[in-house]
Amino acid sequence: MRLILVAGATDTAKIDGISAAGADSELLAHTPSADLELVEYGSLVRAPELPVSPTGCPTPAAVTRAVRELLDLDFLAVDAGLSVPTGAPTVSVGAKRGRDVREADPVPTAPGSFLAARRLGRTLPDEELVVGETIPGGTTTALGTLRALGEEWTVSSSFPENPMELKSSVVAEGLDASGIDIGEFAYEPLLAVRAMGDPVLAVVAGLVAGALDAGKDVTLGGGTQMLAAAAVVRHEGVTGPLTLATTSYLADDVPALTAAADSLDAELVVTDPGFGERDDALSRYAAGEGKEGAGMGGALLLADRAGELERVAEKTVKVVDAAGGAHGP
Amino acid sequence: MRLILVAGATDTAKIDGISAAGADSELLAHTPSADLELVEYGSLVRAPELPVSPTGCPTPAAVTRAVRELLDLDFLAVDAGLSVPTGAPTVSVGAKRGRDVREADPVPTAPGSFLAARRLGRTLPDEELVVGETIPGGTTTALGTLRALGEEWTVSSSFPENPMELKSSVVAEGLDASGIDIGEFAYEPLLAVRAMGDPVLAVVAGLVAGALDAGKDVTLGGGTQMLAAAAVVRHEGVTGPLTLATTSYLADDVPALTAAADSLDAELVVTDPGFGERDDALSRYAAGEGKEGAGMGGALLLADRAGELERVAEKTVKVVDAAGGAHGP
Repeated sequence: MRLILVAGATDTAKIDGISAAGADSELLAHTPSADLELVEYGSLVRAPELPVSPTGCPTPAAVTRAVRELLDLDFLAVDAGLSVPTGAPTVSVGAKRGRDVREADPVPTAPGSFLAARRLGRTLPDEELVVGETIPGGTTTALGTLRALGEEWTVSSSFPENPMELKSSVVAEGLDASGIDIGEFAYEPLLAVRAMGDPVLAVVAGLVAGALDAGKDVTLGGGTQMLAAAAVVRHEGVTGPLTLATTSYLADDVPALTAAADSLDAELVVTDPGFGERDDALSRYAAGEGKEGAGMGGALLLADRAGELERVAEKTVKVVDAAGGAHGP
Repeated sequence: MRLILVAGATDTAKIDGISAAGADSELLAHTPSADLELVEYGSLVRAPELPVSPTGCPTPAAVTRAVRELLDLDFLAVDAGLSVPTGAPTVSVGAKRGRDVREADPVPTAPGSFLAARRLGRTLPDEELVVGETIPGGTTTALGTLRALGEEWTVSSSFPENPMELKSSVVAEGLDASGIDIGEFAYEPLLAVRAMGDPVLAVVAGLVAGALDAGKDVTLGGGTQMLAAAAVVRHEGVTGPLTLATTSYLADDVPALTAAADSLDAELVVTDPGFGERDDALSRYAAGEGKEGAGMGGALLLADRAGELERVAEKTVKVVDAAGGAHGP
């Protein structure tokens, strides 16, 4: 079993109000690189500080790191277009940072990096992979990809109040800039990601497709971005069992998630780490902040399976402390 | 504790008869990337096959992987100028493949990557680092660096018969091409590596310097290339305790190693994994093939310290088998 975190950037995240995956817009750019360092080392190496939301909710990568420590998980970080160098070791699949989806052809590396990731997913030695993502702005590009595929499902947000109107207008502008209609790239998912997605989506979908090719067990650890990745995989014609593992906070926010997972032949598993019963910063997750990301839902499923779910919250607080982050109420 | 493998390339390795770190000259280019995959995964992901010497002696990276499995070691791969993409995750420090030392300015990235590696060595969370290298042709560039520094020590070889005459003539040509005399870059080691070394030497020395800056324990796992790295560190004015951990096969080949280590204020530790008592391909190490590399000496020291040295040979055979390599007599 190996936990994989696919990290990258899209300039779509620079649109004001799109993402809560950083304390401010400057720090947002560091979040994927910092998340990788946190999961790899349990501390920051090149990143300036622990990623937190604007109100101080710690990155879900802290939860993933906590589970990694509890279960001694093998870990692989994949560079899917990082915009800032990371001190974590990464595999490259030729992905570059995505541009704003309101421009034409924002993710030209999508088809090539999908193929390289597919080969990587096929040849990794593990029989089971759990794949997560870290890319600020990723729910907007997930929405764009779903629309280009003609999938009707909606997406979640790292904010307590989902700025759906903003996201929808960004996606509408993007479809316009690319000159495509809703559903234009159904069953041509690499073109959908290239026109309306982000580099992380392409790489996650490639890894999953390759792992399924090789008969591996695959769990997508995450929310609606991972739903979009599953859609890409299915539209590419890849069959095989898929699990979508997410947090209760994300599932509460997206009532249609079960139906969406069903429609993509993915089994939905929801795990509640009990952060709502706490009086520190982790309780913000239960208030709808962060909700999911950096493989958190997948990590929680593994913790639950190993009977260690109860220890995750305390361990996460220790991870946040050790990495120098605040965890006040 | 973290085991670090620094991997890169120098075109000096393309000189016929310089290196035995590959079955033939084409496969030689894949050796560093394959070594990283073997130590990371225990199997090959992007590399075509298990690196072996021209006579079939398996790469010392198999020994390092065996020890990693026995002791469950944390591992970090650093890209110090790979010429072939690897499926192992790597950290970049801005190093590029080195050109042939017979050309002028073959390693322009040396000073910059030394500095980036020094910062990395300082900020890694571990209190102890064991650093190894994998770069075909590296003993010739080590010899060139020692000469540019004015250090008199000699270097070993991955061949049973060390082609010292060839190496010396390559170094003489290199000094000529760079227009420098022996000892010209004493106490200017970054210039020495830039003119006569390889990108791996710069990165190893940088990591070690940074780790010593931060008061970490540092073991150089390797032979005369690591001796050259120690020389770079000392000429840079960095003090602090250094251990040079190598194999008995390497130490047997370089009688002056103790004196050399002494002169650089490094403690020499020699470990014999008992491959000489075997009748399979590992016995070739005792016949002077391979001898050392990919952190083997450092890994053996760790195995010895943990009381697991006796299990290394059998485990190495299993690693070679699992990675699809031959291990006949």
